[in-house]
Amino acid sequence: MNPHQRTWALDETAHLEAIQTALHPRCIAVAGASGDPRSMGYRYLLHFQTYGFSGRVYPVTAKWPEILGYKTYPRLRDLPEDVDLVIGCLPAAAVPEMLEDSAAAGARVVHLFTGRFSETGDPAAQNLEKRVQERAWELGLRLIGPNCMGLYHPAQGLSFTYDLPSEPGRLGMFLQSGGASAEFVLYAAQRGVRFSKLISYGNALDINEADLLDYLARDDETELIAGYVEGVQDGRRFFQVLQAACRKKPVILLKAGRGRAGAQAAASHTASLAGSLKVWRAALAQAGAIEARSLEDMIDLAVAFYFLPPITGRRVGIVGGGGGRSVLSADEWEEAGFSVPPFTTAIEERIRAIVPELWWGWIRNPVDMSLMPPQAQEANLGGEVLKMMADSDGFDLAVANFSMGGPHPSSQLAQQVARWSSDVIEADRTGRNPVVAILNTGTLSPEHFNHPRWRTMAEALSRLTQAGLPVYPCPSQAADAIHRLTACYARRAAQP
Amino acid sequence: MNPHQRTWALDETAHLEAIQTALHPRCIAVAGASGDPRSMGYRYLLHFQTYGFSGRVYPVTAKWPEILGYKTYPRLRDLPEDVDLVIGCLPAAAVPEMLEDSAAAGARVVHLFTGRFSETGDPAAQNLEKRVQERAWELGLRLIGPNCMGLYHPAQGLSFTYDLPSEPGRLGMFLQSGGASAEFVLYAAQRGVRFSKLISYGNALDINEADLLDYLARDDETELIAGYVEGVQDGRRFFQVLQAACRKKPVILLKAGRGRAGAQAAASHTASLAGSLKVWRAALAQAGAIEARSLEDMIDLAVAFYFLPPITGRRVGIVGGGGGRSVLSADEWEEAGFSVPPFTTAIEERIRAIVPELWWGWIRNPVDMSLMPPQAQEANLGGEVLKMMADSDGFDLAVANFSMGGPHPSSQLAQQVARWSSDVIEADRTGRNPVVAILNTGTLSPEHFNHPRWRTMAEALSRLTQAGLPVYPCPSQAADAIHRLTACYARRAAQP
Repeated sequence: MNPHQRTWALDETAHLEAIQTALHPRCIAVAGASGDPRSMGYRYLLHFQTYGFSGRVYPVTAKWPEILGYKTYPRLRDLPEDVDLVIGCLPAAAVPEMLEDSAAAGARVVHLFTGRFSETGDPAAQNLEKRVQERAWELGLRLIGPNCMGLYHPAQGLSFTYDLPSEPGRLGMFLQSGGASAEFVLYAAQRGVRFSKLISYGNALDINEADLLDYLARDDETELIAGYVEGVQDGRRFFQVLQAACRKKPVILLKAGRGRAGAQAAASHTASLAGSLKVWRAALAQAGAIEARSLEDMIDLAVAFYFLPPITGRRVGIVGGGGGRSVLSADEWEEAGFSVPPFTTAIEERIRAIVPELWWGWIRNPVDMSLMPPQAQEANLGGEVLKMMADSDGFDLAVANFSMGGPHPSSQLAQQVARWSSDVIEADRTGRNPVVAILNTGTLSPEHFNHPRWRTMAEALSRLTQAGLPVYPCPSQAADAIHRLTACYARRAAQP
Repeated sequence: MNPHQRTWALDETAHLEAIQTALHPRCIAVAGASGDPRSMGYRYLLHFQTYGFSGRVYPVTAKWPEILGYKTYPRLRDLPEDVDLVIGCLPAAAVPEMLEDSAAAGARVVHLFTGRFSETGDPAAQNLEKRVQERAWELGLRLIGPNCMGLYHPAQGLSFTYDLPSEPGRLGMFLQSGGASAEFVLYAAQRGVRFSKLISYGNALDINEADLLDYLARDDETELIAGYVEGVQDGRRFFQVLQAACRKKPVILLKAGRGRAGAQAAASHTASLAGSLKVWRAALAQAGAIEARSLEDMIDLAVAFYFLPPITGRRVGIVGGGGGRSVLSADEWEEAGFSVPPFTTAIEERIRAIVPELWWGWIRNPVDMSLMPPQAQEANLGGEVLKMMADSDGFDLAVANFSMGGPHPSSQLAQQVARWSSDVIEADRTGRNPVVAILNTGTLSPEHFNHPRWRTMAEALSRLTQAGLPVYPCPSQAADAIHRLTACYARRAAQP
């Protein structure tokens, strides 16, 4: 038998049903459950409780009579009812028997947290993996993994780490790396992104990147897809699925294992063949997917697509910060492909009406707030101009810079930043154009936490993020991500 | 008289003496001193006290009899002794008279915080600026500014903002923007950089970028120079000074006003003519200066040059984090121009001696710590391999990834990160090659400050920074900055 040919998968939607079942289980068994709080055989159980999983949970272990208040069972075959999903936390050698028992327990999907398979390069482990693959197919079991963290589905109370957001969102993800999964969620969550479902799928022995992308493309709870891929199992199928997915929603993809050492590392990590980067990039470009360059870049892209509407124009109005920040902002937005046009006549007239005594022609886009004479500050001209640009058909996007470079005392900075935050949030709420905030808290050490300046900036970040604004630490990161967003939506708008 | 020709400056070192005097004043008068804590006429005085300026201070104002315990004087002419430096915080219209009084008070340098001169575009203000320039020259007064924050010289107790580091360091800076000055210092200080002296010089009516670069190039306390420039007054002289400076120490330069809108904004900010970007870049390349692309990029470059020795090789050993982080790290370092070579035979043999039972060939560069079997963890193989690579002639740089993507409980993460921090610091201290740390605390809001995961990461950041390691939030930023460092030192090494 060719192990790469599925003998049972005659139905083209079988993978969708299997993923749907895994994400919505009524009954989960944890094989290799443990009372040791450091083990994943304990932590999956703990997370069912802390994230509020409402189905039945059966820890399977002969060693512990009870774990976290759950009654345990010595064998999968002893469970009082059929289960939908088995999470395997046993050593690799115990997996073949666990598969037989899972089938006997009525399971449809097995998620193998278990690692040390083909990624080790050890021939015996590779043979074992092949046996596991073949036997699972014979038994009609679908596999997620091995060597992966599995499912994060906050709406169903499923998680693999203790502090991912418990409230659901709109971003759906598939990642070949468990560590990258957790890191992506944690960093993106700081910036307000929330998740519909995320699947860390490791070695992709059965359910693979194409299956998961196909599922997320059809999933109504997922409005935006992001994926981290080390290797593609079947290039032709992946491209077909990708093309279909990109017609429905934005798809951001990060290819890992691009270089020589990276490709070798990918083989050691998930036994993936890195493939041709040229082919990968051509496929993404042809399908209309967005390529992320790094995990951090993928987070920046996700923030853009998560919070911004489908804008295609590139006329930016910039307000906030002092002169240096204004000059640099204009440079960086222009260099990323945006224009920073002059005020419209309507905006000029309104500014003139607010502060007729203002030096004419000095206030322009980008708006340097430190230039404002007292009467302009009293009239809150900065906030007013931001609102005008956010509501003008002469602009597509308003950019609000948060600066802390002024020489004022900390109490004054706190007042200014609080007022500016309110203006920015109001401009975003009331205007026809979206607003993006540029705010850098820097790299905070604990000694900064109670420093008035950093606390002021961190509080503003919190307010903006909670208000649903995209926030970036610097203009170039924002411009770089949002430029790719406008290109993506322009392409979609041009499609028949 | 041609206002652009200095009638008195026959001595080519006059600018050096003037800058030296401004940075080491025995006596400072603040013209336009004020008891209002929001005004700069108050804040310069406050900073003399909080930063420990040891010279004499004379606030000049007819309105306040005493400010912060300092006796005030109604006029500069009334001071009991000659002063070296006058800081002008008066409105622009009062500056001409202040210049006469400053000369009468024996001043040699006047720093004009005062703005609203030619940058406003107002013809009357431009004329006033021209009169100020001419009269200062006639009176033999040197000017810093106008429209600038002035001097930050921690060793002398001079500062323009309340929370810049009070301990001195080795980076010398000149910036045309006061806001960018404060922001650069604050963000770079978070990452451990300290400053010899910094001059914010605004409109550069007299002392300009070439004067300041020349001074810093000759200054023994300055080992590394960075500058933010909106416009260059005299291209030929600046290039000559730059060439000489680059022969002595690394020079990092950020040009602001590169695009159409940015150049206009620079004119409104410091009345600068942006000039040709092409000429600028050619001059930097020919002189061997390093071009920064943004304020954030300049901070990354400063961190590299501040903490790393003059390495020219590009063989990187990478340890730490899980599989995804390892794969992506290898990709990003390779893409930036580094190589990620295999272990040397000596390192292979030492690893084999530590954990003979380890699957052979699985552990490689980059070293995925999550692969480690228990015996390797017990032997602290990750820390040992980092130390080996940091002390091997097969590598030029060791990279320590800090990851928080593992599924462990927070107490275990804290232990792991603390141990890894110690290993990283020890590897840096004991090895022949430098170590760079990749650690991302993300964008912290106050609600994260007491979260165990973020606190763990922030504490590690603090330890590493205090130990003098360069820390970057992601591999690409580190690789991008350090590649330019190796190129700079390779060029210097190739010079006769």
